Amino acid sequence: MTIEIINIGDELLIGQVINTNAAWMAERLNLSGFVVRQVTVIRDSREEILEALYAAEKRSEVVLISGGIGPTNDDITKQTLCEFFNTRLVFDPAAYRDIETIFARRGFPVTELNRQQAELPEHCISLPNKLGTARGMWFEKETGKTKSIVVSMPGVPFEMKALMTEEVIPRLQQCFKTSFIYHKTVLTQGIGESFLASRIESWESSLPENIKLAYLPQPGIVRLRLTGTGKDEQKLKHQIDQAVSDLGVIIPEFIYGFDEETLEEIIGKLLTNKKQTLATVESCTGGYLAHLITSVPGSSRYFKGSVIAYSNEIKKKFVNVPLETLDKFGAVSEQVVMEMAISLQTQFGVDFVIATSGIAGPDGGTPEKPVGTTWIAIATPDEVVASHFLFGDSRDRNIRRTALQAMAMLRTKLII
Amino acid sequence: MTIEIINIGDELLIGQVINTNAAWMAERLNLSGFVVRQVTVIRDSREEILEALYAAEKRSEVVLISGGIGPTNDDITKQTLCEFFNTRLVFDPAAYRDIETIFARRGFPVTELNRQQAELPEHCISLPNKLGTARGMWFEKETGKTKSIVVSMPGVPFEMKALMTEEVIPRLQQCFKTSFIYHKTVLTQGIGESFLASRIESWESSLPENIKLAYLPQPGIVRLRLTGTGKDEQKLKHQIDQAVSDLGVIIPEFIYGFDEETLEEIIGKLLTNKKQTLATVESCTGGYLAHLITSVPGSSRYFKGSVIAYSNEIKKKFVNVPLETLDKFGAVSEQVVMEMAISLQTQFGVDFVIATSGIAGPDGGTPEKPVGTTWIAIATPDEVVASHFLFGDSRDRNIRRTALQAMAMLRTKLII
Repeated sequence: MTIEIINIGDELLIGQVINTNAAWMAERLNLSGFVVRQVTVIRDSREEILEALYAAEKRSEVVLISGGIGPTNDDITKQTLCEFFNTRLVFDPAAYRDIETIFARRGFPVTELNRQQAELPEHCISLPNKLGTARGMWFEKETGKTKSIVVSMPGVPFEMKALMTEEVIPRLQQCFKTSFIYHKTVLTQGIGESFLASRIESWESSLPENIKLAYLPQPGIVRLRLTGTGKDEQKLKHQIDQAVSDLGVIIPEFIYGFDEETLEEIIGKLLTNKKQTLATVESCTGGYLAHLITSVPGSSRYFKGSVIAYSNEIKKKFVNVPLETLDKFGAVSEQVVMEMAISLQTQFGVDFVIATSGIAGPDGGTPEKPVGTTWIAIATPDEVVASHFLFGDSRDRNIRRTALQAMAMLRTKLII
Repeated sequence: MTIEIINIGDELLIGQVINTNAAWMAERLNLSGFVVRQVTVIRDSREEILEALYAAEKRSEVVLISGGIGPTNDDITKQTLCEFFNTRLVFDPAAYRDIETIFARRGFPVTELNRQQAELPEHCISLPNKLGTARGMWFEKETGKTKSIVVSMPGVPFEMKALMTEEVIPRLQQCFKTSFIYHKTVLTQGIGESFLASRIESWESSLPENIKLAYLPQPGIVRLRLTGTGKDEQKLKHQIDQAVSDLGVIIPEFIYGFDEETLEEIIGKLLTNKKQTLATVESCTGGYLAHLITSVPGSSRYFKGSVIAYSNEIKKKFVNVPLETLDKFGAVSEQVVMEMAISLQTQFGVDFVIATSGIAGPDGGTPEKPVGTTWIAIATPDEVVASHFLFGDSRDRNIRRTALQAMAMLRTKLII
């Protein structure tokens, strides 16, 4: 059994909007045990909609359509669906009441265009849309032995997502009994994809057949997604939990979290629980570390602030790094980054400090200290430690990898 | 004449990768005067590739394929293209030399898998790919009166983009004489889309018929893209330049740049030309402003650093904002933000300072100062000015809008 997605919208075919709907739908369907065979993006045109529907229906049992049913252009898609399913539009009082409710909340009267949205094909199950005025439409057709299903949804991402989650996927799971699916994503940091793959090779090959592993790399991070399928929900969860715990024994130093967590949220929770405080003193990261940390709501409870010491003058005068240390070792050095961390810890009166200094590029590299050379120090209530890294050529990626590495280092100090 | 895009890749159909290639290709083609009729995303499978090719060829004169020709899976697409065009793979010495060069640069020997990438269909024009080992393949077929063109490109975005820009679009423009297309994007900041639309309504309606206007909003910014088409290149450029200059008279205070420029690059250039220096002192932006400024290569020439004064303690002790000012007016106030700017200007010894203080949310709002309340001050060599804003509910957007607004304010001081 396969599913096809049809996205309708001129804006997708002039490149004004990136088709994130298709990726979101495909991911959710895939995670629910369904196979997506094809995505087709077409314009708001009767002929093209009909052609795409006939072609998709031949290949796949289920066709999910998003787009083309807003108040200004719903006629084309809705009328075309009526034509395709040989039915007609009828006024749906329940749908009209929902539209009235939405307009009342906004304080506007219902317009004629919106009233027409309550006209729905007679032979469809209409799916309530709490977030907008265009309902989902679920069509079924018996074709020989099998049932063929076509569902039309609005293209507005949050309306489509709510309809998919609350209506479409549960109904599809009822029609096509899929196995249980269980996912767990292990977040790793500090090791590249290929090195990670060889470190966990024997663990990976010993995974049960019903558990699949996907490597999802991002700059500085590799996410490992385990997807298990099975008839017995409890057994499946147990299998995945066991696999995750086995992995934790092999690479404990690289795992920093699970599923959707971010490093800035994780260190935020740890600091909040310990009632301890943090500051940063940044050179190469230029404020990006402070930005990530303060992007977490409530971070003002544990984050006191930063000094972005971009010039040596500021490192000297304001962070109190001795001139001799700067002259003797250079700004990108173990000594300077440790001095920065210790000095700010005293000045800001905080428990922890992260200090960064590096050559982000594209300029500033030397044979001894090429672009990508980075020092990170962590001051804790007990000690100061510093580590050296050689990242790559890209300024953006160097900044990002330094910030992630620094937060991962802080995390290891917070969980001792 | 229409074009279709076929993207091949299993990763697109499980939602692991968002199909940004299609949007980029569609936008570039559209801006070059071509119409994209359909995008089809399929799996790496012979049958599905053949089916998609036959269907696309029936509808459109040109089919552009991306994906499916990496070293590990090139067999399927390349062999299928041979089957479709009734040709065979032959070894291409020039393509092999290019592969050798790329491997020599990386310091690796050419593997057998990569050697096979030099085998290309006999009846195609192979398009050089400077950035990778998979060449582009340009096929032509006479079908009755018209020529039908199929081009296969790698799916790696930067390789595809280079091939499209340097080879595919220029060749398409030779085959299908399109009109001249000329674009200019006007970047505005500080005015919402609907207010902007009503301010420039009469200008917009007086635009010549061959010039189209698109509003492209982003948080805090609205880009106005003018796209003109015409037979006479000089006349067209003149028309667009005239329209842009007319717009400059109507909304001079909101235009900060053109085309791909960013505010951080613009203020960087202005400071470099004036040989002047900048620092920031940030509360609500939490380092995001410093991060944007330091994301520009070479920013260390004019950017000295920041103090992220996230707590009142740091504002007081480290930025020297008097305790009375903080107590009397609160941290989010005109007085505090001006004190922050003046104090840092002296302490850091810089020409310009941007200071921010606001309630980014979701917590911390009061009836007098709701979430979104923001003060921004700019200290220049001559004066200190502060402005008040009420942004929205979203923490991320408030941080971003504050940073953009602050840079726009600095820009107006730099161009006096």
